[in-house]
Amino acid sequence: MGFPRGKITERDGMRESEIINVALVGTGVIGRSWMRVFSRAGCCTRLYDNDRSQTQKALAWFEESLNLDVSEGFITAKEAESSRALVSAHDDLTDALSGVQYIQESGPEKLEIKQMIFRLLDQTADPEVIIASSTSSLDMNQIAEGLHGISRCIMAHPFNPPHIIPVVEVMPTRKTNPEVTKATIDFLKRMGQKPVLVNFYVSGYLINRIQAAVVREAIHQVERGLADVDAVDTVIRDGLGLRWALFGNFGVNNTNADGGIREYYSRFGEAYKTVMNDLDSTPPTFAPDMIERIGRGVDAMEGKTPLSAICRWRDRMVLRIRALKEKDPNP
Amino acid sequence: MGFPRGKITERDGMRESEIINVALVGTGVIGRSWMRVFSRAGCCTRLYDNDRSQTQKALAWFEESLNLDVSEGFITAKEAESSRALVSAHDDLTDALSGVQYIQESGPEKLEIKQMIFRLLDQTADPEVIIASSTSSLDMNQIAEGLHGISRCIMAHPFNPPHIIPVVEVMPTRKTNPEVTKATIDFLKRMGQKPVLVNFYVSGYLINRIQAAVVREAIHQVERGLADVDAVDTVIRDGLGLRWALFGNFGVNNTNADGGIREYYSRFGEAYKTVMNDLDSTPPTFAPDMIERIGRGVDAMEGKTPLSAICRWRDRMVLRIRALKEKDPNP
Repeated sequence: MGFPRGKITERDGMRESEIINVALVGTGVIGRSWMRVFSRAGCCTRLYDNDRSQTQKALAWFEESLNLDVSEGFITAKEAESSRALVSAHDDLTDALSGVQYIQESGPEKLEIKQMIFRLLDQTADPEVIIASSTSSLDMNQIAEGLHGISRCIMAHPFNPPHIIPVVEVMPTRKTNPEVTKATIDFLKRMGQKPVLVNFYVSGYLINRIQAAVVREAIHQVERGLADVDAVDTVIRDGLGLRWALFGNFGVNNTNADGGIREYYSRFGEAYKTVMNDLDSTPPTFAPDMIERIGRGVDAMEGKTPLSAICRWRDRMVLRIRALKEKDPNP
Repeated sequence: MGFPRGKITERDGMRESEIINVALVGTGVIGRSWMRVFSRAGCCTRLYDNDRSQTQKALAWFEESLNLDVSEGFITAKEAESSRALVSAHDDLTDALSGVQYIQESGPEKLEIKQMIFRLLDQTADPEVIIASSTSSLDMNQIAEGLHGISRCIMAHPFNPPHIIPVVEVMPTRKTNPEVTKATIDFLKRMGQKPVLVNFYVSGYLINRIQAAVVREAIHQVERGLADVDAVDTVIRDGLGLRWALFGNFGVNNTNADGGIREYYSRFGEAYKTVMNDLDSTPPTFAPDMIERIGRGVDAMEGKTPLSAICRWRDRMVLRIRALKEKDPNP
């Protein structure tokens, strides 16, 4: 079972100026997954990491990941071979950036390091090349602050792992050229990803804010003894989450009343306010004893299965759910 | 494509005392969906509603719903026939409750009405019969307060529609017999549902609190212009929700670091606190202009497809996702 994904083909009517060559700078957990995204869509994918052993590990992971996908029937051996043929590793940054139209930076999540990398990339890359950062929490305005080429810098934050989960948060800096924003979104769509535009910097951007709201409420209810870890997870996994894999919040709310979201919010707005006012806005402590209590609940729920097997299950199930949605999309 | 569901069979080694006959009191949107749950699992399912036209509508919906499931291949014609054969409508409450071991009340969501219904049910039903309420927001302690038979009263709140979404929140009153709680949970499991124990009353119980946390954050970000309705929905539908259909919050967090949830919370606890402290704890206004703005965003996202077609898509997709999980469960 495969599923459709972005692909660069002649049918796209691609012009010379469009992105076909990509450099990945930083080849850790996020960077290596981007290898899969860009190479499967047909981009020449050039790797660079100042730690060469990291790139070697990424290439080994890439090989393993392709083989697993072939063995589980998500891609054909021929598709794996096409991906392989498009990837190259480079010891020299100038060499890695040669001929690329797009750079995806996935270095360590520290402001000073990202600033240093961006300075270097801005100096080295041809002026028309887009430089995107995978940062999940830093302010892109600060990462690119003061750079000559700030207008071609942009955030493109994937959700881990991007070759499995398609959403990418795209946030331009205050000085990013709108054409760069548009080209980045178009390019990521062509890669088979689901880019969303985030208009300005807020702590956690969009996706991690929504996740934080759930993490906070989930931990609070276990802490106060309302329900155990497995019960909290069941209401999501066998309830809310079955709908959230299909719609977002508003799409779900739209199906919650015969008259759609206007009727739903009009009828239940007051009830929601009561519940919302009752939610505890204090963050959990994340103190060692709190973490250990939750950890034991997870141990009881997940049993002794190795985490790698659980993650692999997650990946293949997400691919299957995506395939269901590709085959029978929301009418 | 079918999927496994609860079933009462001789293999369960069922004794005379176990639940095989069920009465549904209240046959609106929730009650009618319970018809599907209990009848497909092999229970005699006896309907009562003081509004007879409501029961007629429920029977028509039941027929339509069975036919649709047959036509889409979720059940066989024979399974539909077995369900049909187990359902009966009764004009008289005493008649409806005759020989049942479990009553599922799904009347209007108003405290005085639920109290009145429970008084009547407690007077009419044999003393050992369990009386469960589908209430989603009222305090079960208040619904059953002062009843002679409060020890056999319990909340069993399904998530709409229960024949598609399996989670059921079960909350005993402070005076419910623990054996009743256990029997209710066991019974609902045998029905193919996923009951979770909620230990005491809080506003919104568990599931609607988590939903409220997401609704609040989602609306806030659209209101402040961070992102549009479709962008907010995309981060859930093509990001967070793909994982939440498989794990709950803690199961996801456990896969977020190589060392599992302990490592994840230890490393990212402080970052989470920063985001959590930045979340706006004020509820949205739910004023008409706010609702209209969101409504227009949903219109733009969903196009002109009738809501009934979207809901039917949701139902069949949820059944397919459940089938994927039944076939290849979390290892």
